[in-house]
Amino acid sequence: MIAINSIDELKANLKACKEKGLSIGLVPTMGYLHEGHLSLIKKAREDNDIVVVSIFVNPTQFGPKEDFDQYPRDRQKDLEKCEENQCDYVFLPQVNEMYPEGFSTYVEVEKLGQVLCGESRPTHFEGVATILTKLFNITKADRAYFGQKDAQQLIIVQKMVKDLNMDIEIIGCPIVREKDGLALSSRNTYLSEEERKDGLLLYESLVRAKELIDGGERNVSTIKQEMKGIINRGKNSEIDYIEFVNGKTLAPVSEVSGNVLIAIAVQVGNTRLIDNVIIDA
Amino acid sequence: MIAINSIDELKANLKACKEKGLSIGLVPTMGYLHEGHLSLIKKAREDNDIVVVSIFVNPTQFGPKEDFDQYPRDRQKDLEKCEENQCDYVFLPQVNEMYPEGFSTYVEVEKLGQVLCGESRPTHFEGVATILTKLFNITKADRAYFGQKDAQQLIIVQKMVKDLNMDIEIIGCPIVREKDGLALSSRNTYLSEEERKDGLLLYESLVRAKELIDGGERNVSTIKQEMKGIINRGKNSEIDYIEFVNGKTLAPVSEVSGNVLIAIAVQVGNTRLIDNVIIDA
Repeated sequence: MIAINSIDELKANLKACKEKGLSIGLVPTMGYLHEGHLSLIKKAREDNDIVVVSIFVNPTQFGPKEDFDQYPRDRQKDLEKCEENQCDYVFLPQVNEMYPEGFSTYVEVEKLGQVLCGESRPTHFEGVATILTKLFNITKADRAYFGQKDAQQLIIVQKMVKDLNMDIEIIGCPIVREKDGLALSSRNTYLSEEERKDGLLLYESLVRAKELIDGGERNVSTIKQEMKGIINRGKNSEIDYIEFVNGKTLAPVSEVSGNVLIAIAVQVGNTRLIDNVIIDA
Repeated sequence: MIAINSIDELKANLKACKEKGLSIGLVPTMGYLHEGHLSLIKKAREDNDIVVVSIFVNPTQFGPKEDFDQYPRDRQKDLEKCEENQCDYVFLPQVNEMYPEGFSTYVEVEKLGQVLCGESRPTHFEGVATILTKLFNITKADRAYFGQKDAQQLIIVQKMVKDLNMDIEIIGCPIVREKDGLALSSRNTYLSEEERKDGLLLYESLVRAKELIDGGERNVSTIKQEMKGIINRGKNSEIDYIEFVNGKTLAPVSEVSGNVLIAIAVQVGNTRLIDNVIIDA
């Protein structure tokens, strides 16, 4: 495994791989790797000759009052995990090489990037689309891997790739959860013991929604009401949104029918948690 | 020479070229080809194994009240000129294949895209950056060729390529002019005989500016004043801007020193003409 900081060095290495006809799988991450990330790396390992993991806490996807500075970082452990999981390259660029002074080009996926998390994080998905465009161009990967936990991100990346004719396959992988159901997130490290219990209610509300739907309930308001009741049991919780949307267009639905994404975002203490489930009804 | 409408067909053809190790030069155009375009094609022919000319009147770079509908088109003559100039591929996509329903991803070069022509055409450069990103991704060209006449466009494309780590070389080629100095443009076809005379004053004003600078004048206001006087002799002319800017950052300058772009835009009757000169003082 080779750890690389420089864009040009990574490009040169991957160009040599390409010239040998080797396929490249990219796992873009912000580091502090957990089992969710590792599931993406494992999938990339199965599908490709060469696996590249990028570790970059991307400033452009954080709002001015968000947690860029305190976002957890542990480069040493991350490198060990990448090594254990047979990555070929770990790319750890510096902020000032990715965004040199005067940087001013951004990629925006309109509409899809402005709903759900985009409402409370208005520049978030522009930052995500921009950094991914850069990483796709730098690596020329054949495939890139994303967790279904960031459902909106996955849909936006797929749309961007299609709209801009990028030659890369986007692969979504299932949410990985703790045994008790909490969706893995690097931000879980922020949670106190009590907050963690409140965080569990996100999953509980999704399980309840699924139960209701399996039992024949189709009315979104009715299901939302029950979900709200569950999440609001958390003393530290403030609901940002509970939304039922079309799984492709992210347009809100009032009836559960076809491919529906149930997505929730909850502020638990100082930590913003998201979770979701996809229903095929 | 092969004329192709379909994105997938062009991609398949060019992929085969790439696999043979052939280099690809792209000349992106909106058609109605004149000697300016042909100079780009000739340069691309010299530099590359394969020359691709795209002909696409790109709707996203026209404002709602602009001339998208009446923009001159002559596919037959364009194809003949491409053939004569030994192009390998001409790409003539349909609007609904380039921008299918629901298209929503845009590339924006902030700041550079908002000054000069960007002030009176606020979405123009976003449309340019977006279509070029698509064409670069579709063709995977090694080099792309642009006329210096659209100086701001050239600077913006270079910035976009750098910021987004696109693996393509952007090559600017000198302005091609009629014998009397009028910079070639597909839009010149809109001009009446009288308007054409007014259009000539753009070049005359640039020549005068150059003379003044060669004579030692460095004060921008003084030079602008003379240029204004010349252009305003045109009875059908309304100046949009006369700007002296840094040739890289497009920031306005008050003294002529270093690399300076003198750029002008004038509404002549219903036709918007642009011209420019680069000074190294």
